[in-house]
Amino acid sequence: MARSWATYGIDLHLEPAGPGLRRGLTDALREAVRSGRLAPGVRLPSSRSLAADLGIARNTVADAYADLVAEGWLTARQGSGTRVADRPAPPAPAAAPVERRDPGRPRYDLKPGTPDLASFPREEWLRATRRALAAAPHDAFGYGDRRGRVELRTALASYLSRARGVRADPERIVVCAGFAQGLHLLGQALHRRGLRSLAVESYGLDVHWNLVERAGLRTVPLPFDAHGTVTDDLGSSGAVLLTPAHQFPMGLALRPDRRAALVDWARRTGGLILEDDYDGEFRYDRRQPVGALQDLDPDHVAYLGTASKSLAPGLRLGWLVLPQPLVEEVCALGGAGSTGVMEQLTLAEFISCGAYDRHLRSARLRYRRRRDALVAALAERAPEVTVTGIAAGLHAVLRLPPGTEQSVVRAAAWHGLAVHGLSAFRHPAAGAAPLDALVIGYGTPPEHAWTATLDALCASLP
Amino acid sequence: MARSWATYGIDLHLEPAGPGLRRGLTDALREAVRSGRLAPGVRLPSSRSLAADLGIARNTVADAYADLVAEGWLTARQGSGTRVADRPAPPAPAAAPVERRDPGRPRYDLKPGTPDLASFPREEWLRATRRALAAAPHDAFGYGDRRGRVELRTALASYLSRARGVRADPERIVVCAGFAQGLHLLGQALHRRGLRSLAVESYGLDVHWNLVERAGLRTVPLPFDAHGTVTDDLGSSGAVLLTPAHQFPMGLALRPDRRAALVDWARRTGGLILEDDYDGEFRYDRRQPVGALQDLDPDHVAYLGTASKSLAPGLRLGWLVLPQPLVEEVCALGGAGSTGVMEQLTLAEFISCGAYDRHLRSARLRYRRRRDALVAALAERAPEVTVTGIAAGLHAVLRLPPGTEQSVVRAAAWHGLAVHGLSAFRHPAAGAAPLDALVIGYGTPPEHAWTATLDALCASLP
Repeated sequence: MARSWATYGIDLHLEPAGPGLRRGLTDALREAVRSGRLAPGVRLPSSRSLAADLGIARNTVADAYADLVAEGWLTARQGSGTRVADRPAPPAPAAAPVERRDPGRPRYDLKPGTPDLASFPREEWLRATRRALAAAPHDAFGYGDRRGRVELRTALASYLSRARGVRADPERIVVCAGFAQGLHLLGQALHRRGLRSLAVESYGLDVHWNLVERAGLRTVPLPFDAHGTVTDDLGSSGAVLLTPAHQFPMGLALRPDRRAALVDWARRTGGLILEDDYDGEFRYDRRQPVGALQDLDPDHVAYLGTASKSLAPGLRLGWLVLPQPLVEEVCALGGAGSTGVMEQLTLAEFISCGAYDRHLRSARLRYRRRRDALVAALAERAPEVTVTGIAAGLHAVLRLPPGTEQSVVRAAAWHGLAVHGLSAFRHPAAGAAPLDALVIGYGTPPEHAWTATLDALCASLP
Repeated sequence: MARSWATYGIDLHLEPAGPGLRRGLTDALREAVRSGRLAPGVRLPSSRSLAADLGIARNTVADAYADLVAEGWLTARQGSGTRVADRPAPPAPAAAPVERRDPGRPRYDLKPGTPDLASFPREEWLRATRRALAAAPHDAFGYGDRRGRVELRTALASYLSRARGVRADPERIVVCAGFAQGLHLLGQALHRRGLRSLAVESYGLDVHWNLVERAGLRTVPLPFDAHGTVTDDLGSSGAVLLTPAHQFPMGLALRPDRRAALVDWARRTGGLILEDDYDGEFRYDRRQPVGALQDLDPDHVAYLGTASKSLAPGLRLGWLVLPQPLVEEVCALGGAGSTGVMEQLTLAEFISCGAYDRHLRSARLRYRRRRDALVAALAERAPEVTVTGIAAGLHAVLRLPPGTEQSVVRAAAWHGLAVHGLSAFRHPAAGAAPLDALVIGYGTPPEHAWTATLDALCASLP
């Protein structure tokens, strides 16, 4: 029979006998010393008296003490008993444990998809957390609404309508753990409706296609021409996934006539448009169309947004604005609204108090400076390369001389730079990419590494 | 074959026949009213037409309607059909945004599953957030390790080994968004391994069984006797889900010989034991065995823990300690490690600085006082009722005189008290519950409502 023990405020769980008992005792004591709950210099009970307290053999306690003396956690001196060892400095109390770095991790990173993590607004975020915690009703800590917290859905409805032209009602918003979860939920819901394929763009992210396929839907790429994705024949999929504001990664905005064709198709056939508005916040050229497609027909568009680009992927916060019937269908799948309440309440407060807009303005300025520096550096140092897709977003497409993409990616690796060629973003069923190009995520590097990263890029180009 | 039905946005999962069918229908309708998906005043289809839709006997629908009329959820009037009952709207809370409150939300709540949300340690949590934010490396805000943050996995490994006797290595821990997500992930992983059924206990939570079934596994209940779940014949399922430390809801700890039989079975057959350690932190009787089964054979046990009972469900934090091969299989499913980084880092700091132990000690004291008050009140005011399962956890089982369970539940509803009968926790395939009893979640009420809740309970008992 196992026993528990709570002396010194340490919860000990002890196995009845054998090596488990000695190990449990040793581990618990070591942990108590390491965490500082048993402070340096503290005298431990004698092995006899601790053994009596615990109802175990004295030898077991003596052995555990001896192990820890051998390991340097305890000291034993004649006449002074067993004490917690004095150590010059406690080993970094609650500081982050060292994360194993990939051995081959490159020095510079221009892979798209991650914003500059060093500029996450920690101070403002903490202030918002404090206010959110103070204001939260008790039941915020319960299981709650499967769509997510009402505070966040309300703040998002107002923000999305103001900033992205989305017709958003808190009742039709579902909070999710980022874009990927949102897409997976929608894929499953469509599968339940009987759909077996989803039209996608010729260019995109294979992790998204894989998510959709895992939900049971084949992905069928649409044609792509000089004006972007062709939307006049959507096939028989019944649903289509697009990035209308800023095609990823090609960088074009979907033309108004093609938007109209999409919505006509959806109305005519009862189809569903999945609008991935992944970087709608980052638009540098205000004369371009920026509004969400969803506004054209909220009953036929499922809008997907995320804080992964605007704040940080680690927050695991995304949102769906859905046609009414889909709200229930998505929630019935489970997993929706499963983001932690503190993250949800903090983002709600962060948006409501204006900190989100401030953060976006300053991020936009910073990324725009980077984009301009990228364009200027390339014009000077790699004049053969054409830069496109830069009116918005956190990435650019660098057109390369034909046949050079793979060798440039290898040259970059040699310079310690992680970068993807355009072919990595081409749907397998769309055939080989007709263009040689790099997709440059200029939002990714931390500010201090930006110049060196740009140098590494230029050195890799023909 | 079971059937699904989604009219009115209500997902019904219905057993083909017998008492499970009526219960499933009644529960689903009750839940739809409670959650507001069936709004007050809404007229339900006639029993004839609903029965036709579902392909079941009209009497079954009529009985379900009658149950819900008796419970006050529905009203039936000559010439007006069956409608959702009107209830007086609860007063809107002042500052916070108005959340739609369940129209039928009772005044007092003794349903198990939620700890006292009012005692969430907000101040300590905020302090831990501040320290965690200050210490986090920039890349903590990125997509990160699919198992979850290393800081949290490290803190959990040390805590679980010390407090629960789990053999935990940070490399074998996967952070998830609560128990339900963890179970769903494991269900999917087992399905991918080719398993098609999972042995479960005769008593448990239907939401868990449903999760498992959604992953493609049938749930097959094991026999249950006076000593708890019988583990000497585990059938051909290949995996079994149990609550060894404190059977939910019956409250027994799994006997050592039955633990041994489980582990023998797993070793002999290559089977997997899913250990749901849902309230392992709350043990009042220190002479009882409390340790995790996982320690007996970490290569055949998948351990599932959660902060939902020890802190709050809203945090959406759970963890799996897995046999090595399952780590990769679970992570490959996607969705693991998708809890927000701030919640993860804060819990890591909360554990490391000792606040978690302090919080648990004070919660244990508080719940123990409640448990004692419950036992004392019942001894005095309802001597016919026997209380069991109280050595641990946040709930107790109240044995009632035979044949009185449903009438007591109805009486409780009449007194404004939400409480479940034991039959609600009985697996449909295990047949009707042989005992009349209530399952009382004494952790649920806020401190200020505790006395009045206890009064309402005593007033409802025979």
